[in-house]
Amino acid sequence: MKTLLYKSEPQRGKYWQHILADLAPQIRFIHWTDLDFSQGDPAVFAEVDYLVAWEPPEKIAQRLPQLKVLFSVGAGVDQFDLKQLPPTLPVVRMIEPGLTQGMVEYVTFATLALHRDMPLYLQQQTRGEWRRHPVASASKRRVGVMGLGELGQATLKALINFGFECHGWSRSGNTPQGVTGWAGVEQLPAFLSRCDILICLLPLTPQTRGMLNAALFAQLPAGAALIQTGRGQQLVAEDLLAALDSGQLRAAVLDVTDPEPLPADDALWSHPGVWITPHIASQTQPETAVGALLDNVQRFEQGLPMQGEIDKTKGY
Amino acid sequence: MKTLLYKSEPQRGKYWQHILADLAPQIRFIHWTDLDFSQGDPAVFAEVDYLVAWEPPEKIAQRLPQLKVLFSVGAGVDQFDLKQLPPTLPVVRMIEPGLTQGMVEYVTFATLALHRDMPLYLQQQTRGEWRRHPVASASKRRVGVMGLGELGQATLKALINFGFECHGWSRSGNTPQGVTGWAGVEQLPAFLSRCDILICLLPLTPQTRGMLNAALFAQLPAGAALIQTGRGQQLVAEDLLAALDSGQLRAAVLDVTDPEPLPADDALWSHPGVWITPHIASQTQPETAVGALLDNVQRFEQGLPMQGEIDKTKGY
Repeated sequence: MKTLLYKSEPQRGKYWQHILADLAPQIRFIHWTDLDFSQGDPAVFAEVDYLVAWEPPEKIAQRLPQLKVLFSVGAGVDQFDLKQLPPTLPVVRMIEPGLTQGMVEYVTFATLALHRDMPLYLQQQTRGEWRRHPVASASKRRVGVMGLGELGQATLKALINFGFECHGWSRSGNTPQGVTGWAGVEQLPAFLSRCDILICLLPLTPQTRGMLNAALFAQLPAGAALIQTGRGQQLVAEDLLAALDSGQLRAAVLDVTDPEPLPADDALWSHPGVWITPHIASQTQPETAVGALLDNVQRFEQGLPMQGEIDKTKGY
Repeated sequence: MKTLLYKSEPQRGKYWQHILADLAPQIRFIHWTDLDFSQGDPAVFAEVDYLVAWEPPEKIAQRLPQLKVLFSVGAGVDQFDLKQLPPTLPVVRMIEPGLTQGMVEYVTFATLALHRDMPLYLQQQTRGEWRRHPVASASKRRVGVMGLGELGQATLKALINFGFECHGWSRSGNTPQGVTGWAGVEQLPAFLSRCDILICLLPLTPQTRGMLNAALFAQLPAGAALIQTGRGQQLVAEDLLAALDSGQLRAAVLDVTDPEPLPADDALWSHPGVWITPHIASQTQPETAVGALLDNVQRFEQGLPMQGEIDKTKGY
């Protein structure tokens, strides 16, 4: 019998517990919020094999001496301080169909909304103004995705179906068929100059922190739009507001902010060119995530590589 | 040499003229706004073979004695008073890829927006409120399209790709693969009871006028949402507002209204559950529409059936 410790959102943990009990009764499920810490760490800590967490507990190596794998409940691992984790501990980000589908839905929604000038029309609605604007054909609208992992690839496949001219940029430049690929910092300016709609799906790393800034916005075509579905700390909010006010950007859809929750008096909330959602683009769905987890547990126990195991030198 | 008279939006007429001159120099193009009516109808009226119009001139039979076909520039023909037209005059609605693509983009945008609670999130944004709501999987979201012509079929094909449970209703019930089809008034209640998101793409006819009313809304699942991309006169606006206020409907996206433009003080503009766009979902694109027109002209001259020729007894 293996022991799995869950430390994340408690209500969702109940789902994980139910589904795991059905699919893998041989795994003992420990819910962090059910534990009694009044006498220090509970004895069961000594038996934990797998940790499923958003934010892991401190001093993992000492407190969970048998820990074999750390699984993130989310698509990113930026909430972990990788330097504080035991160097040999495998860290796995979540790749599961529910998470991917949510992101495809959200980015497609946001891309079509920006393509069809919906922020402008909803602004007009507040004034009772019935005014039509010219429509560009999707084939003349250039859409670029930064970050070509699981989510970026799936998103581009959905956008191609609408006939957009699609571009993708990443370290490696690996893109699906029908997408023009761009790789590395040296090709970033050429990529940006082709993005009427820029979609950020990058992981948070030292290289991407603060990357969505004035210098980057200036390389986009005038009047471009931004969809930020990466991590809040990648965006320099004051630079975004300045770019919107100057007209360099015409609109932005933000699902992540810094900090989260965004304070109620933050200027982003009230800018007419900004739509904000509270980090809901993509949420791990227990129904499908437990299957992905169990598949990785099995792979680990068979000595096979796990899906989503991160490279700690790259941070994703 | 054949003569074609264009009577619709003047700026777009310039595009039609350019494109026709390129593709079909053998057709003489007459732009309504270029004509001189100071001495009554111009002599060229006697030579007009084809009329491309949004609203046709009055007394067509007398004024355009050689007229062979009346082409609508739009997807509908409800702007024509069919009883006033010569009974033998063929009337053709517009079927062209640009028009279809625009509708697919708009309805996909609106469906994803309603699926992902975007009207609610944009309402929260006005209060600076960061609050997440549960996400339903697309496979558990039932989407129904009323009207299964060119636009309805293309729209359903796009929505299926996102994994929605798709239903279609029409007189005939002819649906694409993967869609549950419902036909005729007797199956309408069963269809409506399965629509978490109802999309109206029906033509305006005596049967569909006022069809989106309290009785219909009551047959939808509680908390359903509406996308109205048919014609404004199909919707009873006060019934919509009442259904939104009672919670029977949670939101509506309207691209058409009655009248158009919607007056600035209309209550629809300011209802928090309503998004309004000024009849921009789908616009005939001259680049592709001219090709569709020329194809139909050729078919007509060869005695073949034209694409989009309407059945005047049905009105579409």
